[in-house]
Amino acid sequence: MTLPVKDLVLKYALAAKKAAHELSIMSAEDKNKILLNIADALEENSEKILFHNAIDVDAAKQSGLDAALIDRLTLTAERVKAMAKGVRDVAKQADPIGEIISENEHDGLSIKKVRVPLGVICMIYESRPNVTADSAALCLKAGNAVILKGGSEAINSNKIISGIIVDAGVKAGLPQGAVQFIDSSDREIILNLIKLNGMIDLIIPRGSENLITFVREHSSVPVLSHGKGLCHVYIDKNASVEMATDIAFNAKCQRAGVCNAMETLLIHKDIAPKILPKLCGLYASAGTELRGCNQTQVIVPNIIPATEEDWDSEYHALILSVKIVNSLEEAISHVNIYGSQHSDAIVTNDENAAEKFIKEVDSSAVFHNASTRLHDGSVFGLGAEIGISTDKLHARGVMGVRELTSSKYIVRGDGNIRK
Amino acid sequence: MTLPVKDLVLKYALAAKKAAHELSIMSAEDKNKILLNIADALEENSEKILFHNAIDVDAAKQSGLDAALIDRLTLTAERVKAMAKGVRDVAKQADPIGEIISENEHDGLSIKKVRVPLGVICMIYESRPNVTADSAALCLKAGNAVILKGGSEAINSNKIISGIIVDAGVKAGLPQGAVQFIDSSDREIILNLIKLNGMIDLIIPRGSENLITFVREHSSVPVLSHGKGLCHVYIDKNASVEMATDIAFNAKCQRAGVCNAMETLLIHKDIAPKILPKLCGLYASAGTELRGCNQTQVIVPNIIPATEEDWDSEYHALILSVKIVNSLEEAISHVNIYGSQHSDAIVTNDENAAEKFIKEVDSSAVFHNASTRLHDGSVFGLGAEIGISTDKLHARGVMGVRELTSSKYIVRGDGNIRK
Repeated sequence: MTLPVKDLVLKYALAAKKAAHELSIMSAEDKNKILLNIADALEENSEKILFHNAIDVDAAKQSGLDAALIDRLTLTAERVKAMAKGVRDVAKQADPIGEIISENEHDGLSIKKVRVPLGVICMIYESRPNVTADSAALCLKAGNAVILKGGSEAINSNKIISGIIVDAGVKAGLPQGAVQFIDSSDREIILNLIKLNGMIDLIIPRGSENLITFVREHSSVPVLSHGKGLCHVYIDKNASVEMATDIAFNAKCQRAGVCNAMETLLIHKDIAPKILPKLCGLYASAGTELRGCNQTQVIVPNIIPATEEDWDSEYHALILSVKIVNSLEEAISHVNIYGSQHSDAIVTNDENAAEKFIKEVDSSAVFHNASTRLHDGSVFGLGAEIGISTDKLHARGVMGVRELTSSKYIVRGDGNIRK
Repeated sequence: MTLPVKDLVLKYALAAKKAAHELSIMSAEDKNKILLNIADALEENSEKILFHNAIDVDAAKQSGLDAALIDRLTLTAERVKAMAKGVRDVAKQADPIGEIISENEHDGLSIKKVRVPLGVICMIYESRPNVTADSAALCLKAGNAVILKGGSEAINSNKIISGIIVDAGVKAGLPQGAVQFIDSSDREIILNLIKLNGMIDLIIPRGSENLITFVREHSSVPVLSHGKGLCHVYIDKNASVEMATDIAFNAKCQRAGVCNAMETLLIHKDIAPKILPKLCGLYASAGTELRGCNQTQVIVPNIIPATEEDWDSEYHALILSVKIVNSLEEAISHVNIYGSQHSDAIVTNDENAAEKFIKEVDSSAVFHNASTRLHDGSVFGLGAEIGISTDKLHARGVMGVRELTSSKYIVRGDGNIRK
């Protein structure tokens, strides 16, 4: 007899809550031992993981999923190695639990704010099977239990990865219920999970706008969205031509299907003629489709004309819109109007222009003379990342282990009372 | 012609969004000048404020609101002075905007995380008219615009206070739209406000469980609840009798209608006979109704028997439930089962017992040898407070100006690209 969805989901949540309590008092050493065992097991089972991943990839190709999604879904021996390394990097991080966030004396009281686990975290995500390992590792390190609800397109990959994590984890002392993967693509399950306020402490939806909007609209549990990345690179008139070309090419072509890839290139009118002809040649030879504004069409004659819709599009593919702007101010304004407040870059040798861009562009990460693709947990030194928050509350931008914690005031007195 | 609610609410949000941008680039000096002008104006208009407050208090008495609510609604010359002082204290705080939260070098990149405003905050609150001044001051200091939606029972008080704030603020350079009070008790307005995801960055509901549940269930904007305070004091067997008596009396009787007042006294069986007779006499003389467990009834013969419902009740009044426990563990377990994770205290001279209580009680603030009533922004050195968050995400416990900010990564390179 199968349980009704409501009871099934409650069963997961209760097991997670119990495990969360055990995890919250576990030592850093014990948590790290579990993590290292998980990392080893992932590597040892690489072939098994690739076998199950191939089933998902084949199904995705047959159902005609687009190239960016298939790229995100596909694992290789190297990507499995990277997944295990990510788990080891998390183990290496300083333990966040018990860390003193602030400390002061006031009115004869000693007031400390210390870091504590959040409790139970629920990840609702699509494609990328590495999210399964990264999320489990980060949640454990921060003393949280995690419920994983992956997308149907990666169901075989996620099942095998989470199975390996739980087996290897439990052998090393992981409490039962600390990592649970929900093996179902029933949307009803999501709807029930996001109503468990009081049982689940945080929902992280990571994937399409559609998924995120659905979760945000219906959740009574606090939500941190990992949403749309409509990122820009702006090449200022005082940029180095070579550096600008490298960064603009990298931001689009190094990996197009990810959220921190550039979707629109903004370029100052004074430098555009010196950069665009060669840069557009590079894009073309990398198979990138270009769509340009009126002024761009003059410099790059055969470019597809861009429409208003292009400025508003996250292609998630080898497509790029190009717009020539008349000033730094126009670039900033374009980013703030069309961007998704994710990752935006300026390339310039003019410090004042960089300062203005950094101050006025309201994004989770603003880059000066660096590619937007660098907005990443391992690049930022956080070990693995659970994603990039496009929210402003609690955590903004790339989230590591600290962003999965809460805090508690510890107040010590000597009989102090309120006057 | 009056606007439909949807358009009216959108008009408020658009004005706030515009003001938020201006506030985000305003200097600390300019913000402080505005705050000091507001503080002066509140004090100068004290009589006017008391006059309008009296209208609300009279209406509340006539409609039979309970004593705790009337206490929270009532202003006095002293409370208006305290309100102005709160605004001045906020001005004195260090400006949080631009503060460097973390800083590191990684892979040749300089990565800084700096504090930025949240944007637009919407406060939805009941009774306490001082919340109007505190919220406006804290939001301004953190560079945010604020939309204030107070309860109908304090409508006259809130209208006059917000009017004085806006007048004095604008004279000192406050952008139009930075502080807006919604003069309506239409619940439809709340429903429309909490759907403005993308326009409003944070909703803070502060008041009854009913209000908070309603907001949490329907909001698509991130929410920080300021919810129920079901607080405990536990007197351990190794407590000082005098200190325990002082703290237990203060936690209940200093002001009963507030969220950090004690609702249940837990006391170890070995010390109960030494403390309860005298303490219960003190409570009685302060007009406090007592409800005791079976064991308490033996020591305090005429006490009203407590029921299961009492352990689960936030009285918000001079009523107290008393329970004798057999161990520290039983006390911790009672707090974690029945408490609202708000403020809980242990009185003991045993350091190990204190450590265990502090570690295992999962509340936003845990006190050792101090009254729960001290969970307060000014006591903790934060200036005024916007409230006490009963959520675990973003801010937990008392919230000052820093808790009303977000962050932004600023990444500087020298042509760095993703390998």
